[in-house]
Amino acid sequence: MKALVKESAGPGFVMRDVPEPRIRDDEVLIRVRRAGVCGTDVHIYDWDAWASGRCKPPFVVGHEFAGDVVQVGSLVTDVQEGDRVTAEGHIVDGRCLLCRTGNSHVCPYTKIIGVDRDGCFAEYIAMPATNVWHLDDSISYEIGGIHDPMGNAFHTALTAEIPGATVLITGCGPIGIFAVGICRAAGASRIIASDVNPKRLALAKQMGAHDIVTPAEADAAVKRATDGLGVDVVLEMSGVPAAIHQALALVRVGGRVQMLGIPSKPIELDLPKEVIFKGITIYGVVGRRMYDTWHQMTRFLKAGEFNPEPVITHRFPMADFDAAIAAIKSGDAGKVIFEIA
Amino acid sequence: MKALVKESAGPGFVMRDVPEPRIRDDEVLIRVRRAGVCGTDVHIYDWDAWASGRCKPPFVVGHEFAGDVVQVGSLVTDVQEGDRVTAEGHIVDGRCLLCRTGNSHVCPYTKIIGVDRDGCFAEYIAMPATNVWHLDDSISYEIGGIHDPMGNAFHTALTAEIPGATVLITGCGPIGIFAVGICRAAGASRIIASDVNPKRLALAKQMGAHDIVTPAEADAAVKRATDGLGVDVVLEMSGVPAAIHQALALVRVGGRVQMLGIPSKPIELDLPKEVIFKGITIYGVVGRRMYDTWHQMTRFLKAGEFNPEPVITHRFPMADFDAAIAAIKSGDAGKVIFEIA
Amino acid sequence: MKALVKESAGPGFVMRDVPEPRIRDDEVLIRVRRAGVCGTDVHIYDWDAWASGRCKPPFVVGHEFAGDVVQVGSLVTDVQEGDRVTAEGHIVDGRCLLCRTGNSHVCPYTKIIGVDRDGCFAEYIAMPATNVWHLDDSISYEIGGIHDPMGNAFHTALTAEIPGATVLITGCGPIGIFAVGICRAAGASRIIASDVNPKRLALAKQMGAHDIVTPAEADAAVKRATDGLGVDVVLEMSGVPAAIHQALALVRVGGRVQMLGIPSKPIELDLPKEVIFKGITIYGVVGRRMYDTWHQMTRFLKAGEFNPEPVITHRFPMADFDAAIAAIKSGDAGKVIFEIA
Amino acid sequence: MKALVKESAGPGFVMRDVPEPRIRDDEVLIRVRRAGVCGTDVHIYDWDAWASGRCKPPFVVGHEFAGDVVQVGSLVTDVQEGDRVTAEGHIVDGRCLLCRTGNSHVCPYTKIIGVDRDGCFAEYIAMPATNVWHLDDSISYEIGGIHDPMGNAFHTALTAEIPGATVLITGCGPIGIFAVGICRAAGASRIIASDVNPKRLALAKQMGAHDIVTPAEADAAVKRATDGLGVDVVLEMSGVPAAIHQALALVRVGGRVQMLGIPSKPIELDLPKEVIFKGITIYGVVGRRMYDTWHQMTRFLKAGEFNPEPVITHRFPMADFDAAIAAIKSGDAGKVIFEIA
Repeated sequence: MKALVKESAGPGFVMRDVPEPRIRDDEVLIRVRRAGVCGTDVHIYDWDAWASGRCKPPFVVGHEFAGDVVQVGSLVTDVQEGDRVTAEGHIVDGRCLLCRTGNSHVCPYTKIIGVDRDGCFAEYIAMPATNVWHLDDSISYEIGGIHDPMGNAFHTALTAEIPGATVLITGCGPIGIFAVGICRAAGASRIIASDVNPKRLALAKQMGAHDIVTPAEADAAVKRATDGLGVDVVLEMSGVPAAIHQALALVRVGGRVQMLGIPSKPIELDLPKEVIFKGITIYGVVGRRMYDTWHQMTRFLKAGEFNPEPVITHRFPMADFDAAIAAIKSGDAGKVIFEIA
Repeated sequence: MKALVKESAGPGFVMRDVPEPRIRDDEVLIRVRRAGVCGTDVHIYDWDAWASGRCKPPFVVGHEFAGDVVQVGSLVTDVQEGDRVTAEGHIVDGRCLLCRTGNSHVCPYTKIIGVDRDGCFAEYIAMPATNVWHLDDSISYEIGGIHDPMGNAFHTALTAEIPGATVLITGCGPIGIFAVGICRAAGASRIIASDVNPKRLALAKQMGAHDIVTPAEADAAVKRATDGLGVDVVLEMSGVPAAIHQALALVRVGGRVQMLGIPSKPIELDLPKEVIFKGITIYGVVGRRMYDTWHQMTRFLKAGEFNPEPVITHRFPMADFDAAIAAIKSGDAGKVIFEIA
Repeated sequence: MKALVKESAGPGFVMRDVPEPRIRDDEVLIRVRRAGVCGTDVHIYDWDAWASGRCKPPFVVGHEFAGDVVQVGSLVTDVQEGDRVTAEGHIVDGRCLLCRTGNSHVCPYTKIIGVDRDGCFAEYIAMPATNVWHLDDSISYEIGGIHDPMGNAFHTALTAEIPGATVLITGCGPIGIFAVGICRAAGASRIIASDVNPKRLALAKQMGAHDIVTPAEADAAVKRATDGLGVDVVLEMSGVPAAIHQALALVRVGGRVQMLGIPSKPIELDLPKEVIFKGITIYGVVGRRMYDTWHQMTRFLKAGEFNPEPVITHRFPMADFDAAIAAIKSGDAGKVIFEIA
Repeated sequence: MKALVKESAGPGFVMRDVPEPRIRDDEVLIRVRRAGVCGTDVHIYDWDAWASGRCKPPFVVGHEFAGDVVQVGSLVTDVQEGDRVTAEGHIVDGRCLLCRTGNSHVCPYTKIIGVDRDGCFAEYIAMPATNVWHLDDSISYEIGGIHDPMGNAFHTALTAEIPGATVLITGCGPIGIFAVGICRAAGASRIIASDVNPKRLALAKQMGAHDIVTPAEADAAVKRATDGLGVDVVLEMSGVPAAIHQALALVRVGGRVQMLGIPSKPIELDLPKEVIFKGITIYGVVGRRMYDTWHQMTRFLKAGEFNPEPVITHRFPMADFDAAIAAIKSGDAGKVIFEIA
C-alpha cells in the first residue's frame, strides 16, 4: 500500500509502497479515508531535537484519521467490518495504576501511532479494537479525521469549569480555535482569543470568540473584560514563552491555567509572583481523557453544539505532503487534511 | 407606605398602610420597583400546614424584588444611594461553621424576608448591605426582581456537570423553565423537559428544550435520547411524587439527581432499586450559593447567554394580589410579577 | 472438585462434586484458599425475594476469596502461575459508557460471581485476568479473602472527605466495622459507631471508634460531639429503616450520607425535611471503584494503617456451611471465613 | 506598651514603647501572650528586596499570636472580654468576588498584620472581630500562637487527596514538619521527608515521616517506595530551586504538586518535561482557606490526631529578638516562639 514514511534520521518524508499491516487477534484493520496533519508531524518532518530523541525510523507517520473497518481480529466483539470509525492514537497498557484509575491518558507505557509505531498516513492502519471509536452517521470522515486534536481541545477546555467563566485562549492554532468553539458552546461568558495571525483570529471570531486580539492587546482586553481582575481560566495553546508569561499574568488570583502548548526550550518563571502568591492551579494537558473526552466530543458534535468545519482550511492528497507541511508552517492554516480514499 | 400584609393566621393577604421600615447602621433602605410572586407566597396566602408551622403574622410578604437604594446606614461602605439593586433574601449569621466554609445557603440561623421578617411586597424594604446585589445597567428591574428564583435554577443546574450532559427536567414551573435555558447555554447536549401543562411546555421549548414531553411520554423520550441508558442529570423541579420516582428511574446508573421541588407529604421510596444499586448521587438544593450563584447568574445575563424574559407571563399592580395568586394557581403561568413603582 | 452449590429454587446449599471450571484464553484458574461469607450468601441460602428474582440455580455460591493462580490462559500477560491473588467479583463489559469513563462499578452489564455465574465456594474458580488483583507478600490469604467487603467499606468511606470530619456509622456489621478503622486511619476527628449488638460495638471500639452507642443513644451522642450541629458524614451500613431516618436526621445541613445498607422494603421519606431543606448529598454505594478502591485498600494494608484482622471472628471448613450461615444470622459475628485449602 | 518595631528602611528591629492600639467598633483588643516568629519576619529584619518593596516603616512586626481579649468594640457580637483567641492575620475586604465565593485567602485587597499594618510582636494588638478564632480549652496559648503557620501546612496538605497517598515533602522547616504530622494523621500511606539538616529530619521522623532523606537520597527513596512511579503528591515547602525541580521530577504522572516554598529568584523550568507531558496539577498555596482550614485545624488538634508541640524548639522573651532571628537563620530550629505575657 502507499504510505508516508519517515525513512531515516533527517528531514523530510518519503511516499512509498509498504506492506499492508497484519492485525493481531485483538486488532482491526482500517482503510484510512481522511487524516489530519499535526504540528507533531512537522517536528518529525523537520527532524528536530524532540523527534530525533523520540522516534526510530523507518516508520509510517500520522496519528489523526478516520476510515472504514475492513478486517476484524478473532477476539474482537464490538467492532464489525464496515463500521465507520476513528481511533484514540495512544495505545496504553490498560493494567498499570494510571490505566486502572481512569488516567490512561498518562499511562507510562503509552505507544503513539505515527510516533512510536506505524501511523495513519497510509491506505490502511492496524489498531487495537479497544482504541477504536465509532463515528455517528451524522459525523463525516473529515471531522472524524480530526477527533484527536479536537479531543485535545475538549480535554483542555472541559477539565476547567467553563459555564459562566471568563476565558483567555492564548494561541489560535487549530486546537486553540476548536477550544474557542467548545468554550462558547459550554457557556463561557467571555472568550478572549489571542494570536499574532489575523487569519487565525478571524477563524477564532467565526467560532465564537467575543474578543480577538494580538498578544500586545491582550492585557488591555482582559482588564477591560474583567474589571481589572483577570480571567477565571486561561487555555495556553501556543507554547510561546511570552504567551505563557501572559497567561500567568492575566489569570485572576485563584484561577486556573490549562497548559497544552509546548515551548521549545526551558523558560524562566518567577514562581512566587506568577504562581504561588496568585494561588492559581496549573494543569498539564496530555492527550485526551480515555474515554470521557471522547464521549463529550461525540455529544457536542451530535447535538450540533459545535461545528468544527470552518477550522479545516486546507485539503491535500497524500502525495502533496510537502505542500501540507508548508501550509502549517505558514502560520495561516487552520486544520490541514489529507484526503486519502 | 402600602404593603401586602399577612395579617393573621388564616387565608389571604391584606393590602394596607404600614410604617416605612427603619434601617440599622449596616442596612440600606430600598424602594421596591418590581417583585416576583412565588409558590411560597401562595402557601402563605393559603395558610397551609407549612405556612402555619413556620410564619408568625402579622408581617409583610414577598421575597423576590429589585429597586433603588434610597437610604444607606452609617456603616455601609459599598452601597450608595441611587444604586439599582436586588438582594439575596436569606439573611444569615455569617459566623457559623456553614457560613465560614462557603455554605451560607444552609446556615442554620437563616431568616428569610417575607417569611421570617418583613418582606418586599411593599413600597420600601430594609436589607442588610451584605445581602444587596448590584444590577448591571443592562439588566432591567423586572429581571432583577426575579433573581431569587433564577438563582435557584442556576444553583440547581450548575452544581451538576452540564457541558455535554443529557438532562431531564421534571416540572416546568418558572424555575424549571429557567433551568432549561441555563442548561442550554451551558452546553447540555440534550434537554428533555417534562410537564403536564402545554403552555409551560411551550415556554420550555422557547427556552431551548430539545424535547418537550408529558410525564407519560418522558420514559420513552429519555430512552430514545440515551440509547436506553438514562440521562446523566435530572433536575427535579416539581415536587410531584410520580415525578420524583420518574427522576430516579430515568437517571442513568452513576448519574445525579438535583432535588428542588418540594413534595407536600412523605413519599415511599424503594431505596435499593431507586438509589443504592443505581450508584447515583442526590443533592438537595437550598436557595442560592452565596454568592457563587449570584456571580454566575450576573455573568450569564450580562453575556446575553440566557434571556429569562419569555418566562415572565403576567404582570399586576400590587393591589391585584388575588389575581396574581390565582394566575399561579392556574398552572398556566410562567413567572408572575408585581409592578410596584 | 468440592463446591457449595445452590442446587434449586428453595432454601439451603448443597456441598457436592462439580467439574473443575475450564478457563477461556483471557482467564486464569485460581485454587481457592480462603473465602468470605457475606450477607448476600445468606439471602441466597434463604432464597428470599431478592435471591429468587435474581439467581438461576444451579450455580456455585460465593464471591469473596483469595488463593493461588494455577493455570493461565494464552492471552493473559500479567498474571503468572503461582501468583497469590484475590479478585474483583464484578465482571463488567469494559466497553460501555460507564466502563470507559471510570465507572465500571455501575456497568449495566455486570455479572457477579456466585450470583450470576459460578462463584468461589469451591476448590477452584475461573476468573478473567482483568479482574485478578495481586496480593502483596505482607497480606495473608485470609485478609485477601475479604478484600471484596473491605473494598465496599473503602469505597463508602473514601468517597466522602474524611480527614478532620465527624462521622456517624450506622450499623456495625463487618463492613461498618471496617469503615470505622478506615475512617480512623484517614483522620476522622470523631467517629460515632452505632449498633444494637454489644459484641459488634466492642469490635467497633477496637477498630478505633471514639464513641460506641446503641441507636437509642446515637442522637444524644451526635449532638454532644458536634455542638448540636450534626455530623459531616454518615455511613449508613445497616439498611434498617430507623437507622436510615436517623442518618438523615443526624447529618448536618450540607453534609453527606453514603448509603450502602440495603433495606428489605420501601421506606417512607419526608424528602423536604430529611433531604431537600437540609441541602445534603446522598451517594448510593455499589461495589468497589474499579480499581481506585483496590489501590487505596492495598496501600492502607501495606502501610499498616489499618488492620482488619480483629473483624474476622469465625472460621469454618466449607463443609460447615450451615454453621457459618447461622453465625452470621446470630448478629454476633464479625466476618465469617471458609478455610478451603 | 512594649513592641518590636521596624523603625526604618534598613536591617534590624527596635524594641520600644509605642501607644496601645485603639480599636474600631468592629474590632477587639487582644493582650498577646505567645507569638510565633516566621521566615517572613526574617525577611523584614534583613530588609531584603521583597521587604523593601512591600513594607512601609515604621510599623510593629509579627503576624502569628494568641492571647486574651481585653476590649470589645460596640458592634462585635460573638467575641467577649476574656476569650482565649488567636486570629487569621489576613484582613480581607469581604465583598470582592473572591471573598464572596469562598476564596478570601486570595482577596486582592488583603492587608497582613505585621506586614501591611501593625502586628503582634507587642503587648496588645487590635484585630477585626471577623478575624478572631476562639481557642478550645484544650489548646495552649503556645499552640494558639502558631496557628498561622500550622494553617499553611493544613491548607497545603488537605487540598490534596491524602488518605492512602504517597507523599514527598521537600523542606522540613516548621511548616514542612507540621505537614508531615498532618499527612500522617490523614492517612498518607508513605511520607518521605527531605531536608539537608539532620535536626529537622529528626523532627520530621518524630512527627511521623516513614522515610527521612537528604535531597541527594530523595530520588532513590521515592523510586523504592513507589516502584519507580513517583509519589502521588509533593508538598514543596523549601523554595529551593533544586527541590522544586526534584518535586516535579518525583511526582508521578497525573500527580499533584502543592507549592508553598518561596524561591528567592526566577527559576528556569522545562515545562514540557516537568509539567505538561507529565499531566500534573500544580497548586500555589496562599495563607489559609478562610475558614475551612481553621475548622480542620481545630478538629485535628481537639481530637488529638496531631500534636505540634515537638516542632517548637526555641522560646525567647521578646527582648531577645536578635537571638530568635539568629535561631531561625541557623537552619536548626523548628518553630521559634516569643513568650510575651
